[in-house]
Amino acid sequence: MQVYLDNAATTKPAQEIIRKILSLLNENWANPSSSHKKGEQARQSLEQARKVIANAIHASPEEIYFTSGGTEANNLAFHSILSGTKKKHIITSCIEHASILNLCNYLEKQGYEITYLPVDKQGFISIQALKSALKKSTALVSIMHANNEIGTVQDIKTISRLCQQAKVPFHTDAVQSFKKISISTKGITAISLSAHKVHALKGTGALYLKKGTPLYPLFFGGAQENTLRPGTENTLGISCFAEAVKIKYPFEKVQKLRDYMIKELLKIPGAKLNGSKEKRLCNNMNMHFEGSNAELLMKHLSEKNIFVSTGSACDSQKQQASHVLKAIGLSDKQAQASLRITLSPYTTKREIDYTVRNIKYLVSITEKLQLF
Amino acid sequence: MQVYLDNAATTKPAQEIIRKILSLLNENWANPSSSHKKGEQARQSLEQARKVIANAIHASPEEIYFTSGGTEANNLAFHSILSGTKKKHIITSCIEHASILNLCNYLEKQGYEITYLPVDKQGFISIQALKSALKKSTALVSIMHANNEIGTVQDIKTISRLCQQAKVPFHTDAVQSFKKISISTKGITAISLSAHKVHALKGTGALYLKKGTPLYPLFFGGAQENTLRPGTENTLGISCFAEAVKIKYPFEKVQKLRDYMIKELLKIPGAKLNGSKEKRLCNNMNMHFEGSNAELLMKHLSEKNIFVSTGSACDSQKQQASHVLKAIGLSDKQAQASLRITLSPYTTKREIDYTVRNIKYLVSITEKLQLF
Repeated sequence: MQVYLDNAATTKPAQEIIRKILSLLNENWANPSSSHKKGEQARQSLEQARKVIANAIHASPEEIYFTSGGTEANNLAFHSILSGTKKKHIITSCIEHASILNLCNYLEKQGYEITYLPVDKQGFISIQALKSALKKSTALVSIMHANNEIGTVQDIKTISRLCQQAKVPFHTDAVQSFKKISISTKGITAISLSAHKVHALKGTGALYLKKGTPLYPLFFGGAQENTLRPGTENTLGISCFAEAVKIKYPFEKVQKLRDYMIKELLKIPGAKLNGSKEKRLCNNMNMHFEGSNAELLMKHLSEKNIFVSTGSACDSQKQQASHVLKAIGLSDKQAQASLRITLSPYTTKREIDYTVRNIKYLVSITEKLQLF
Repeated sequence: MQVYLDNAATTKPAQEIIRKILSLLNENWANPSSSHKKGEQARQSLEQARKVIANAIHASPEEIYFTSGGTEANNLAFHSILSGTKKKHIITSCIEHASILNLCNYLEKQGYEITYLPVDKQGFISIQALKSALKKSTALVSIMHANNEIGTVQDIKTISRLCQQAKVPFHTDAVQSFKKISISTKGITAISLSAHKVHALKGTGALYLKKGTPLYPLFFGGAQENTLRPGTENTLGISCFAEAVKIKYPFEKVQKLRDYMIKELLKIPGAKLNGSKEKRLCNNMNMHFEGSNAELLMKHLSEKNIFVSTGSACDSQKQQASHVLKAIGLSDKQAQASLRITLSPYTTKREIDYTVRNIKYLVSITEKLQLF
């Protein structure tokens, strides 16, 4: 048995995608910028995919720009919004994805002032703190929809309303929440999406950018994506993205299984759930096993063909404790004793039981575990 | 019969790729940054692919950075090289791809001085002119290996030697020549490659960047690609790229067929080959049919399921005559009477004969052709 419980890092391509791919590879592979019939066929598929993505977030097709992924979408949102204004203040949270935090770090060196909102023990920013941070020079507010490590879902409706009142563009990184939580573009200037988190392919993402937002590309080339994102479009990745978006996410089924798993794991002495119990992604759990070493647990589980993680894949090369877990008040030691377990619609109860058994056993012998 | 002769715009995925894709989609789809066994499997495939690309251009694996395509690779090369120096002079040619020319246009506005070397009637830059243009403040020379419209192959050996002597970094856009003409990194600082021009997938490219070149990313995120190019790697696209690179390009077969086609088409009264007869890509022809309208020819051929182009797909939204054809001395009218026909290893003599017959007929009734 292989049990893949690292669906926040990436997801297995859906069978529906695999079927679609074969027809695309054999029949519909031309360059959408070519003016002949084969090019037109490719262009039609591209525009059809754009409509599907737009519909999924209640946007217009012309507000969707395909990118190479969520990281590029986040960067492009910032670049396009910031290039159109002289204001130099940005508000974000201290638990954002590496693509936002490292970008902000760069922007600070370029003279921007960044306010990093702290979060409470469950991972929520304070709306009051956001209100106080907003000022005349605020160019952009960027708060992720759902966190990639602890799954905490921010109240982006209230955040977007606040930003609208203050006339400040609001961007949200919805890479983890997309398809799991419905999102509407109302009051939001920019939304980042990624295909490989929703059972499509790596190498494709999308940026929603509200009509009227100035378009400043990150790099230059042909007129693709209304010149905001040049380069021949990743037509296969984009069509697969749309195909994946059409598949309904079985929210309740996943959440029920996840809740069952949390309940079982909490029976382990010293086990504690990190983050919010209620307002978290339906497929996410992040748990601290007192006195254990999560890196060792993860490696030993991997030997049993159970794949979980100790945090964000994008931060996996870092040796430090997770910035998210530290932000919600965990000590280094507690953070390094925490596992992230993220389910998919394909996860079964049998897989969960197998995993729970193994975690229970490994935690019980935690002092004897060694790196191999 | 479908005859695809627009292989400079994009190529049909090879059957070898399609086989590879199925196993990747089902078995090897994890995030290469994940620390568990499935992540390691993905990382190994990624590094294996990097070796294949590196070997193909006589580079070291750690000098290869995967990107979303040739356009991004071109931009990243400029960005990384230019960010590491205070010099503000760039030398390029006037027949580069849109990604270079539009980037240079942007850089001019940022205070860079750009020398656009002219080309002769065959599309060659003058080595003497390059020599004269090089100066103390020259930060970068960027000359494409083979042109995407007329296929002219520049003498990059001599160019790279000149740049080495002058201690100026030399970048070449080898998107069109890769696999068709062997290239070595000797004396070259940066080389841009693209997967979808070599029968792999759109959405993947690579940048060779010589060891020791400063690394300045175009955007920010995780530590992927040695932090030069963050974002989860397009593992499927990258493995397919490597798979395609392993397939030998049947240079002589393609060139022979192309030469036969040129010979046949030159029998049409008023037909003329644009560019060099000798030093051009083995699969490229670009031909001017006096008095005809290439846009109409292309559309009518498309109705016959013959797919050729009037120029670069990346410029297809422009209504102006090709900047490349103008640069080699064609009038607007001549440029607009020119077709680009680009073969693949899969092109057959039967397809060429069918195409030649149709072009001959359409040119003969050129005055009666109408747009539909």
